[in-house]
Amino acid sequence: MRNTSNVEKIILGIDPGTNLMGYGLIKVKGNKAEMIMMGVIELSKYDSHYLRLGKIFTRVTSIIEEYKPDEMAIEAPFFGKNVQSMLKLGRAQGVAITAAIMRDIPVHEYEPRKIKIAITGNGNASKEQVAGMLQRMLHIPKDDMDIQLDATDALGAAYCHFIQYGKPESEIKFSSWKDFVNKNSDKIHI
Amino acid sequence: MRNTSNVEKIILGIDPGTNLMGYGLIKVKGNKAEMIMMGVIELSKYDSHYLRLGKIFTRVTSIIEEYKPDEMAIEAPFFGKNVQSMLKLGRAQGVAITAAIMRDIPVHEYEPRKIKIAITGNGNASKEQVAGMLQRMLHIPKDDMDIQLDATDALGAAYCHFIQYGKPESEIKFSSWKDFVNKNSDKIHI
Repeated sequence: MRNTSNVEKIILGIDPGTNLMGYGLIKVKGNKAEMIMMGVIELSKYDSHYLRLGKIFTRVTSIIEEYKPDEMAIEAPFFGKNVQSMLKLGRAQGVAITAAIMRDIPVHEYEPRKIKIAITGNGNASKEQVAGMLQRMLHIPKDDMDIQLDATDALGAAYCHFIQYGKPESEIKFSSWKDFVNKNSDKIHI
Repeated sequence: MRNTSNVEKIILGIDPGTNLMGYGLIKVKGNKAEMIMMGVIELSKYDSHYLRLGKIFTRVTSIIEEYKPDEMAIEAPFFGKNVQSMLKLGRAQGVAITAAIMRDIPVHEYEPRKIKIAITGNGNASKEQVAGMLQRMLHIPKDDMDIQLDATDALGAAYCHFIQYGKPESEIKFSSWKDFVNKNSDKIHI
């Protein structure tokens, strides 16, 4: 098996919303991951819905240009309270996705519940529990975490992608021999 | 009152969907409007939802660069069958809107019912009735109309914007003296 554990990869996590957009970047190498940075754009300060969409596009684009991530993971709820809020959320998601697509960055979507399970093992974990786990796993100073709590969903999406698919080939764990065979049919000689 | 009836204005109409995106451009001068062109992008031929969003962005951007519209009008349903379809529609809308915002083109949204009323006087008019009225009002050869039926919602959005707000200042009709006063408070001397 090819040893790719020295390959470094940057994953951008985005949590696009209509009032806040969270973002977080992690650098992964082998089975180690560390945070590069995280932040929040307060969209609610812009009165115009259009201006908010424009801000999402320009900010995601500038983050991509500055940090050159290899992949993007977004937190994407597929269910919502009503069609109006889903339409608005869809607009914000569509803009963030397009900013990545226009820079040839592959996009991966994760439901909030899947992110919580990947990080804490519990699909109903609180924001604070997710933040606490991320803080320990990524060695983030606790004060930073408290200030940027709204960015942790984005960081969580990036970390979830790392756990699921972001690891270099040699690091991929197989749950069973059958699983290994399925994923490596070209390597099996009978 | 300033005579601006010789000012020419180009309005881009967009009907963003997840399977088809319609577009139509009209040139308006005084109370006259004529079609420049219309068309449809068949998004369903692209398997990837992300590729579809990317296509919407690049196509709207290239139309804006080629025809330099002054304003954009989009057909934007605010209600839908379910949250899933609204999320997808929202993504398509968000991308089309952002393409305009990034080129400093003002965006106006019109509900399908409002477009139908503006063009036919009937909020429940069929697609064919809307197309028939547009064909007559914009002097479009009937064959073009039949071929491009899916583009007529976009053309309808542009025409609706022209009727409502797209006319030069001297052409604006006031519904009452109170309405005139509200819109021209700087012109009234008591």
